[in-house]
Amino acid sequence: MSEHTLSKRSLSKRSFEDFHPGMEMSFGPRLVTRDEIVAFAAEFDPQPMHMDEDAGRRSMLRGLAGSGWHTCCLLMRMVFDGLLVQSSAMGSPGVDEIDWRAPLRPDSSITVRMRVMETRASRSRPGVGLVKFHFDVVDQTGTQIMTMIATLMFGMRVALGSAAS
Amino acid sequence: MSEHTLSKRSLSKRSFEDFHPGMEMSFGPRLVTRDEIVAFAAEFDPQPMHMDEDAGRRSMLRGLAGSGWHTCCLLMRMVFDGLLVQSSAMGSPGVDEIDWRAPLRPDSSITVRMRVMETRASRSRPGVGLVKFHFDVVDQTGTQIMTMIATLMFGMRVALGSAAS
Repeated sequence: MSEHTLSKRSLSKRSFEDFHPGMEMSFGPRLVTRDEIVAFAAEFDPQPMHMDEDAGRRSMLRGLAGSGWHTCCLLMRMVFDGLLVQSSAMGSPGVDEIDWRAPLRPDSSITVRMRVMETRASRSRPGVGLVKFHFDVVDQTGTQIMTMIATLMFGMRVALGSAAS
Repeated sequence: MSEHTLSKRSLSKRSFEDFHPGMEMSFGPRLVTRDEIVAFAAEFDPQPMHMDEDAGRRSMLRGLAGSGWHTCCLLMRMVFDGLLVQSSAMGSPGVDEIDWRAPLRPDSSITVRMRVMETRASRSRPGVGLVKFHFDVVDQTGTQIMTMIATLMFGMRVALGSAAS
C-alpha cells in the first residue's frame, strides 16, 4: 500500500473535529428476518410476543415483534459499520433516552438516521470529545420504530498525533 | 396438574398491583464468559476493545470489556427469568437513562438489583399500569457496571379477570 493511500485512509478516519451540530448521516437499509428476531429473543428477551405469532397477536403489539433491545443492537451494528469502524470512537458513557415507538416486524428493512445534537470537549479527559447524537430507526414503510439519544466519545485529531490536524 | 396448583400459580403471577415504590428485588448472580463477550461483540458491536485483549488494553477500558449493549441484554434476560416470566408484563415504552459506569470483564459474575421508583395507571390504556424501575448491575467485586432507569407495562389484576382481585 502506498504512502499516498495510507494518508488518504488516515484523512478519511473521522475524529471529534469532524462532527458538527446538525450534521446528518444514514445507515442501511438492513433486512431483519423472523429467524433473527426469534433467535435474539430466545437468548435475551423471551417474552411471548417476541417468540411466537399467536402470542404476538394477543399482545399490545398485535403480531410477532422483535425485542426493543434487538433494535438497539441492530442500530449499534449499523452505526459501527457505517461510521465507527473508520473513526476514533472510544465508546460511550451512556444513553439519555430510548423510545420504542412501533413494533419491529419480521422481514422489515430498517434504516438508521443519525443527527449530531451537540459536541463538546471532555472536561476530565484531554484529547477526547463527546458527541451527542439523535438516532431514528425507520422501517421500509417509513414507520418510526425507535428513537434514541446517546453520547459517544471520539479522540481528537490533535491527540492522535496526525500531521493532518 | 391439580386445580390447586393452577390456582397457586395464578396467584403467584405478579400484576401491576403488586409493585410499590421502594420495593426491591435482585436477580443473579450470572457468570459472563470471555467467549460470550466476544461472540456478542462480533455480532452487534465489534469495536476492538470488545473483541481483543490487546486492543482493550490500549483503550480507555484498560482491558477486554463487554459491549454496554451486552450488559443491557444480560440485564433483560435476568429480569425476565426472575420476574417477567411469572407476571402480566406487556413490554416497555422505553428507557429513561443508561449509564455505563465500569467495564464488564470476562468471567465476571453479575447481579441485577432492582428498585421500584414509581407506579401509575396508564392514561391511554385501561387496565394497564406503568412501573418505573431503577436497575443496578454489579459484579462480584461490588463494582457498579451499569445503572438504568426504565419503565415497564403490566396488566392490572382486575383487567385479567381474576377472582383474586
